[in-house]
Amino acid sequence: MASTGTGEDGPEVPDDDGASAAAAFREFMASSGASDAAASLADPNSAWLSSEDLADVRRRLPILYVEAVPVRLDGMGVVTQVGILLRANERGAITRTLVSGRVMFGETLRDALFRHLEKDLGPMAFPQLPPSPVPFSVAEYFPIPGLSAYLDERQHAVSLAYVVPVTGTCDPRQDALELTWMSPAEASSPAVHAEMEGGRGTLLRAALASVGVLG
Amino acid sequence: MASTGTGEDGPEVPDDDGASAAAAFREFMASSGASDAAASLADPNSAWLSSEDLADVRRRLPILYVEAVPVRLDGMGVVTQVGILLRANERGAITRTLVSGRVMFGETLRDALFRHLEKDLGPMAFPQLPPSPVPFSVAEYFPIPGLSAYLDERQHAVSLAYVVPVTGTCDPRQDALELTWMSPAEASSPAVHAEMEGGRGTLLRAALASVGVLG
Amino acid sequence: MASTGTGEDGPEVPDDDGASAAAAFREFMASSGASDAAASLADPNSAWLSSEDLADVRRRLPILYVEAVPVRLDGMGVVTQVGILLRANERGAITRTLVSGRVMFGETLRDALFRHLEKDLGPMAFPQLPPSPVPFSVAEYFPIPGLSAYLDERQHAVSLAYVVPVTGTCDPRQDALELTWMSPAEASSPAVHAEMEGGRGTLLRAALASVGVLG
Amino acid sequence: MASTGTGEDGPEVPDDDGASAAAAFREFMASSGASDAAASLADPNSAWLSSEDLADVRRRLPILYVEAVPVRLDGMGVVTQVGILLRANERGAITRTLVSGRVMFGETLRDALFRHLEKDLGPMAFPQLPPSPVPFSVAEYFPIPGLSAYLDERQHAVSLAYVVPVTGTCDPRQDALELTWMSPAEASSPAVHAEMEGGRGTLLRAALASVGVLG
Repeated sequence: MASTGTGEDGPEVPDDDGASAAAAFREFMASSGASDAAASLADPNSAWLSSEDLADVRRRLPILYVEAVPVRLDGMGVVTQVGILLRANERGAITRTLVSGRVMFGETLRDALFRHLEKDLGPMAFPQLPPSPVPFSVAEYFPIPGLSAYLDERQHAVSLAYVVPVTGTCDPRQDALELTWMSPAEASSPAVHAEMEGGRGTLLRAALASVGVLG
Repeated sequence: MASTGTGEDGPEVPDDDGASAAAAFREFMASSGASDAAASLADPNSAWLSSEDLADVRRRLPILYVEAVPVRLDGMGVVTQVGILLRANERGAITRTLVSGRVMFGETLRDALFRHLEKDLGPMAFPQLPPSPVPFSVAEYFPIPGLSAYLDERQHAVSLAYVVPVTGTCDPRQDALELTWMSPAEASSPAVHAEMEGGRGTLLRAALASVGVLG
Repeated sequence: MASTGTGEDGPEVPDDDGASAAAAFREFMASSGASDAAASLADPNSAWLSSEDLADVRRRLPILYVEAVPVRLDGMGVVTQVGILLRANERGAITRTLVSGRVMFGETLRDALFRHLEKDLGPMAFPQLPPSPVPFSVAEYFPIPGLSAYLDERQHAVSLAYVVPVTGTCDPRQDALELTWMSPAEASSPAVHAEMEGGRGTLLRAALASVGVLG
Repeated sequence: MASTGTGEDGPEVPDDDGASAAAAFREFMASSGASDAAASLADPNSAWLSSEDLADVRRRLPILYVEAVPVRLDGMGVVTQVGILLRANERGAITRTLVSGRVMFGETLRDALFRHLEKDLGPMAFPQLPPSPVPFSVAEYFPIPGLSAYLDERQHAVSLAYVVPVTGTCDPRQDALELTWMSPAEASSPAVHAEMEGGRGTLLRAALASVGVLG
């Protein structure tokens, strides 16, 4: 069975350029020590998971993700281009995917969204996070097929998905090989649908439908 | 500081009357043993958390919740009544709250929503789950105030919230003392807003606005 | 060019079984005579348009429509079937379409939606109008192609589209020949997409995406 | 009874700086003459309504409007300020209102939204039209109270309402006296709610709820 991973897999090391809300959160917790549960956050290490701990918790809890479909808009707000990532998965196969990643402890959805957009598109993408926190779709990934349209071998993940206009220059980093800009018609095609990993062809179509450009 | 808990707190014992999807999920995993991560699910105990484990994981990960605002509709689909729970919290204070609870490993959002509606409203409430899986709002609960409108001393919880019409008889169980049916105007009032625990007055207003009856 | 009409075309004669809100509205206007503009409504005839007047106004104003995609739900709210109308258009060709019709003066969107559902599906369909008045999509029909995905030779129409669960027996009336129930997968197919009149294949896909069942 | 008008009332003269899509539309119609209904558009005058014609049609058809709540966002997409118009109505009273206006024949919703934003906020406001054409709410205005939360003495109007971030400088024109920027908390207050004309306090609250900042 092909791997259908949703992004980062190693031990959790917060990026320098992200997670600032989570950092502020831990600082506040350290100084306040308000409640018992919160007090443990005084130790910054406790909030991040080792590889082993993450593997363990993935067998016991649904993991919260955010996903983003980067788009270009014309002057009237119409989506003219859709950004799809090309990525080599763990077995070396090339698949298409979306911007995606985990929400960390103490991190707001917006901060997580921004952090993963920066991680996957580079620091000059200038994403315009939407004013509404309501996702266009919620994708439920299960490690076995048939429970939903989405599959992730590693875990049960629930992903809040957003369409995010970007106005700058995208320069994919980390494990993303390339960002491909497509017309909405091309992104609506069966060919692209079939190449998306983990069932994200369905999520991509829902994104296109939500902004009125599904072919 | 008053407790602002989001529901169940003891060790996780799946209800007889719920979690059937999760049970089927574990069974399937046991018989297939497909991937390493999934294989551990063969042991049903591994998927549920002890009190200690739950407390531990709550300091390390955002926990996924669903919440529901039960409503009565007239024949044209207009919301005529809104159901609010009265509950005694751990310190004996009476607060108002919504139907709410955790999504378990291997459980779909719909199954979790149905299970918590049954737990809080009884087996004869006959909730009509909405065809769309997109929530009207996403509430982010943090253990410290100021990061969002929502507060939960015990954890960082992210809650997908739905308006759910119920057509049967509600008979609150467990720790809920009573279900109060209110008109949308009464539910919109500052008095009710102030009595809702954990900032759910804001969530209730968003629910009313989403169905066009916020006063 | 094939006709792509959005439903009724003759002089406006309110149905016996509908438009009750509009009727009440005219009655109220007749007895109150509050403002000048409203006073003219005292004459019930003034609120309805002759064929000539309707043709005239269609060249001068966008006309407001509602559309509905009837669906069957399972016990968990998941869409299991989608209802598509088969209709002979003015030139005798058979096309597929959705429940659709004009909003009349003084009529609420809910009343219009209910009236057209009853007109197209019969009085025993028992549609469950959604609690939220926000459509899943807004379709803009223009008499010339290229301005949007939707085409209506007769007029500029703006249509608010809803997914509506029906629980009863559907018995299409008037010019609808038949209601076909399809699985979401079948309704997602290119074949059905191509058979829908006026571009409604796109609207149907947006409907399926909005309830999480687009293939 | 106080006037509760939704904007422009004189004869329809398309602005120099707007309605370009409608103009292109009329031009196309003139040169193609495709269908009978469309052919009449060859005469540009036929598409616009005189004062008398507009008054007449307002007694016979619901009129389609768009409305906008201008907002300022911070770098993470959170709404930090909400723009409310101060306007003198026909009787000289000062009321608060939203950006609002009619959709013209042949005009897309986006073009109408952009035209009215420019009309009410000036040419340097730089509104960022949302990628999704789905409104956060649909407001139904009737000339008599009680049918909905919204009132417009002159007509039955159905208004599609959007939250629109603006990034430039706002310089209200025409009959708007002033644009007031408020915090979301201030905009949520009962005082502002009571000052909004035609029931738009309810629409404003729905806007704030849709972007997660209703107090």
